[in-house]
Amino acid sequence: MNEKRPLILVTNDDGIQAPGIRLLIKTAEEFGEVVVVAPDSPQSAKSHSITTLNPISIRRYVVHPEITEYSCSGTPVDCVKIAIHKLLDRKPDLILSGINHGTNSSTSVIYSGTMAAAIEGSMNNIPSIGFSVDNYHLTVDFSPVVPFLREIITKVLQNPLPVNISLNVNFPNVAETSIKGIKVCRSANGFWHEQFVDGNEPHGRKTFWLTGTFTNREADSEAEDSDEFALKQGYASLVPIKVDFTAYPYIETLKLQGFEKE
Amino acid sequence: MNEKRPLILVTNDDGIQAPGIRLLIKTAEEFGEVVVVAPDSPQSAKSHSITTLNPISIRRYVVHPEITEYSCSGTPVDCVKIAIHKLLDRKPDLILSGINHGTNSSTSVIYSGTMAAAIEGSMNNIPSIGFSVDNYHLTVDFSPVVPFLREIITKVLQNPLPVNISLNVNFPNVAETSIKGIKVCRSANGFWHEQFVDGNEPHGRKTFWLTGTFTNREADSEAEDSDEFALKQGYASLVPIKVDFTAYPYIETLKLQGFEKE
Repeated sequence: MNEKRPLILVTNDDGIQAPGIRLLIKTAEEFGEVVVVAPDSPQSAKSHSITTLNPISIRRYVVHPEITEYSCSGTPVDCVKIAIHKLLDRKPDLILSGINHGTNSSTSVIYSGTMAAAIEGSMNNIPSIGFSVDNYHLTVDFSPVVPFLREIITKVLQNPLPVNISLNVNFPNVAETSIKGIKVCRSANGFWHEQFVDGNEPHGRKTFWLTGTFTNREADSEAEDSDEFALKQGYASLVPIKVDFTAYPYIETLKLQGFEKE
Repeated sequence: MNEKRPLILVTNDDGIQAPGIRLLIKTAEEFGEVVVVAPDSPQSAKSHSITTLNPISIRRYVVHPEITEYSCSGTPVDCVKIAIHKLLDRKPDLILSGINHGTNSSTSVIYSGTMAAAIEGSMNNIPSIGFSVDNYHLTVDFSPVVPFLREIITKVLQNPLPVNISLNVNFPNVAETSIKGIKVCRSANGFWHEQFVDGNEPHGRKTFWLTGTFTNREADSEAEDSDEFALKQGYASLVPIKVDFTAYPYIETLKLQGFEKE
């Protein structure tokens, strides 16, 4: 093994068997030594959750015997933590998460397991990128994104990201459009409006199944620098994501409103 | 029922039976009509995860028949969503989450189910506050925080928070210190360093149980405006939390590094 090759950790939230991660692994292999640690079952919308009330377990996952792969019973963030602290013999040079089947643009970042894995990487000072495609179907051919993956991976290996900053890359629906290029953007200001679909479980109890639609709070005219706008125009959006929750400008407001107390 | 009384939704992540939420409910009742929708089991570290792969169910929870309470099989964020979209007949005026048994200062926000519920409230334009105490034990008397809860709830009802901004309130360990006052702060820059405790399940497979210690990246001398510093000095910390993931200053850096592509 060539010690000089970058060590690349690949994970996702759709589960280790998803076509999206398979394509990402194949592309990552062009750039370095690849180790895969990914959930053993779908973990969509798990956000930054971690498993603390139960232990987790891992198994070797053997599809291509030349690649070291582990499936993990935990969440995407558990995968990153156990990879770094238990499974890898050195700190990875890069974490790639995805390719997610479904978009993670705008505020969807907050629900996304794909992006949580990348964000967790950035908190550990490892350059990390989450990739998503605006198409949920597992049978859609994601290969049109490959040249863009190569471009972005190359650039990040040349320009490592600082601590607490990761990249959120979203591609438009490759089944319907060709990708025009890449735009560096900010996250659009939007939210999900929920609907619950009522049902009954076999014992008669009511059940509620969460579904919803995304609403963008911004008009196109005021949001040309946003990821939603870039995607609408057929571009891949690339947003730098930071780990910092403070609403700084609001600190002074709260002080003026008398929230401090001695 | 007096229509003019504020409608207050109370939730948490430790589960509907936790002493922390019981104290919060009792305090909230001084301020308005209270409805409780909280997880039916502990949901610590569930972050902003939502349940989309299965339906969820709810039950009436009757301890004090005069209060409307529901336990929910989902996560804290599920509780907020189903409360707003299914269970409440009008939009709540305030969401209170907690009182969490354990601190949610600094970057712990990202893992916290308590704060996720408050953040979800803010995304729905409902003033929302998460409360946590730096003590994990369920038997510790949290009552010293009550005068501070009253103070903060009063102020937020007088000064409603804008959309996408919630408050993260942490109290020092009330079993060891008296609370000196309240400081408006920013989140400290820290991270959790993980350790996995190895074990074996009964069938012989190895298990890994996540634990860890918090590391503050900042020295006290450079962090007097941070929540960690305020807590260390015996104050309650109050941090405005925003929903915005973009690392704005880094957008230009990425453009200069040639990440855009036509």
